[in-house]
Amino acid sequence: MPRVMICGDLVWAHKECEQMFAGVADVVVMSSPDRADFLASLKSGGKYAGIVGVYRHNISADKIGIFDKEIVDALAEAGVKWIAHNGAGYDQIDVLRCKEKGITVSNTPGAVDDATATTGLYLMISALRQFSKAERDVRSGLWKSQLRSGNAHDATGRTLAVLGLGGIGMRLAELAHAFPMRIVYHNRRKLESAPEWCEYYPADRLDEMLGIADVLSVHVPLKKETEGLVDEKMIRKLKKGAIIVNTARGKVIDEEAMIRALEDGHLGAIGLDVYPDEPAVNPRFFDFPNATLLPHMGTETCDSQKKMEVRALNNLLGYVTKGKGFDIIPECQ
Amino acid sequence: MPRVMICGDLVWAHKECEQMFAGVADVVVMSSPDRADFLASLKSGGKYAGIVGVYRHNISADKIGIFDKEIVDALAEAGVKWIAHNGAGYDQIDVLRCKEKGITVSNTPGAVDDATATTGLYLMISALRQFSKAERDVRSGLWKSQLRSGNAHDATGRTLAVLGLGGIGMRLAELAHAFPMRIVYHNRRKLESAPEWCEYYPADRLDEMLGIADVLSVHVPLKKETEGLVDEKMIRKLKKGAIIVNTARGKVIDEEAMIRALEDGHLGAIGLDVYPDEPAVNPRFFDFPNATLLPHMGTETCDSQKKMEVRALNNLLGYVTKGKGFDIIPECQ
Repeated sequence: MPRVMICGDLVWAHKECEQMFAGVADVVVMSSPDRADFLASLKSGGKYAGIVGVYRHNISADKIGIFDKEIVDALAEAGVKWIAHNGAGYDQIDVLRCKEKGITVSNTPGAVDDATATTGLYLMISALRQFSKAERDVRSGLWKSQLRSGNAHDATGRTLAVLGLGGIGMRLAELAHAFPMRIVYHNRRKLESAPEWCEYYPADRLDEMLGIADVLSVHVPLKKETEGLVDEKMIRKLKKGAIIVNTARGKVIDEEAMIRALEDGHLGAIGLDVYPDEPAVNPRFFDFPNATLLPHMGTETCDSQKKMEVRALNNLLGYVTKGKGFDIIPECQ
Repeated sequence: MPRVMICGDLVWAHKECEQMFAGVADVVVMSSPDRADFLASLKSGGKYAGIVGVYRHNISADKIGIFDKEIVDALAEAGVKWIAHNGAGYDQIDVLRCKEKGITVSNTPGAVDDATATTGLYLMISALRQFSKAERDVRSGLWKSQLRSGNAHDATGRTLAVLGLGGIGMRLAELAHAFPMRIVYHNRRKLESAPEWCEYYPADRLDEMLGIADVLSVHVPLKKETEGLVDEKMIRKLKKGAIIVNTARGKVIDEEAMIRALEDGHLGAIGLDVYPDEPAVNPRFFDFPNATLLPHMGTETCDSQKKMEVRALNNLLGYVTKGKGFDIIPECQ
């Protein structure tokens, strides 16, 4: 029987894992305390020898680090052909090296959409309404004495600009459309499957889109081309008082440029779930009354965690049983 | 020309007020520092003598107190026939005494629906997802170390029970339906205008509704019959781990019973915008990690505040010009 590895704890789908791979593959759980042990154990005669596929969760990075060139090369050498990553974002995997080494990478796109988009909706409402400051005030015995409704706005009738209309962005668009908000978006290409109430702005009309947005919500994956994508220039194209929401990756936004725009009042508020150097958070954010800050809670629900575990396991199972899994990332297609 | 009084500051609709009443009525602004001065000024020869209608905002209570029997009687004596209250809830007015004295009271029902329901949506998401604790943790340098996704849930697919499907409850139902959530509700009578996806539970099936609710959101006005309506018995009929959201009035819920249910884990979380003795908040709430607490922010947006001011002024104008305004409260119909 082929061997597969669980790299990073399963929390919700232990039983499902057992049942799915029974009689199909041997499941070995990654138990290395550090990278050296992990690399050694992949070698012939080692405890991970002969594995052909890996289920991966970011939590494994706490022990063995991210899947960089060194780890990818060692996995390829050991015979791994598939990495089933649990998560929408796969910036902790050197996927170009995977491709070079003949390893296919899958992620769990749909499974995270609902929970992450709901986080975006929450951050948007909080930023529009000053709710984060309001809660800090009520807990400090201030009631709402420091708040002015002139700084608070209804979502209804305002314009949400989605940067990156993929699964998460589309789900947020649906939830915001219920108010209704006007939905505009920018992708490299028009999304033909998007409903007609999603208005497309191509690259040559991006400035126009930023100029009409009350809220800019970021939903692009972190890649070389998207690092610092939301830069000083883009932020300044937003109208005064606009709001930025980020549930994607911290490094997609130029953090210093965003802080400057908060300091001089160009931005009305921000709602962040992600930061460039998690779990570190730039302490300057704590000083802005109009910042709502969450500790990367996007997919933190038992429902979504289980969906993600099962989906990643299913991708791996597809490779083991049919030679090809699902949810292959674009770089490996 | 008839005289009308602005009792409690206009913030957003000064110009509208001027234009609406130009050539129609004299507008006098309530300027009394206290109740004694107010009552004296209503008498013949006083600065408010001859007023026939009053625009009222709760903020006037800071100076002259609520519109209790004493004030209502004095207003009636002065010749007032209409009180155009700014707000959906009118528990600060002795409306039964108004009726006895021939004063009609109007409120601003529709104007508050969107902003208040959005507050309910925010509190529901926060309670389901543990976002209040998450933000306090990230601001304390804890990142998300104290959170477990087992205690966090998606809204999608869960059941929202609306207690009081009026304008605000219906608007929340619409927003929650977008996930979708299953929507169940209890009113004294079935709301014939409700969409078919709102499932009605009459009084004899109230326990059944509570038993299937993941979230109970309270939207009944505060009256004698609704004080303490959500009591120990009702709370215990909810399933273990259920969530209570209150954007109506604090006194509708038995606060001690709710605290007991949080203490023993019967309730999974709460989201409150209102409290029995505002601006005081029972400090015991601050100790529950699973409590999201706002300082009565339901209608605190510039959009809604202006809508409410204009709507209340319009109700008063209707009385002055046609002898009858709009939005007459049920007790005065």
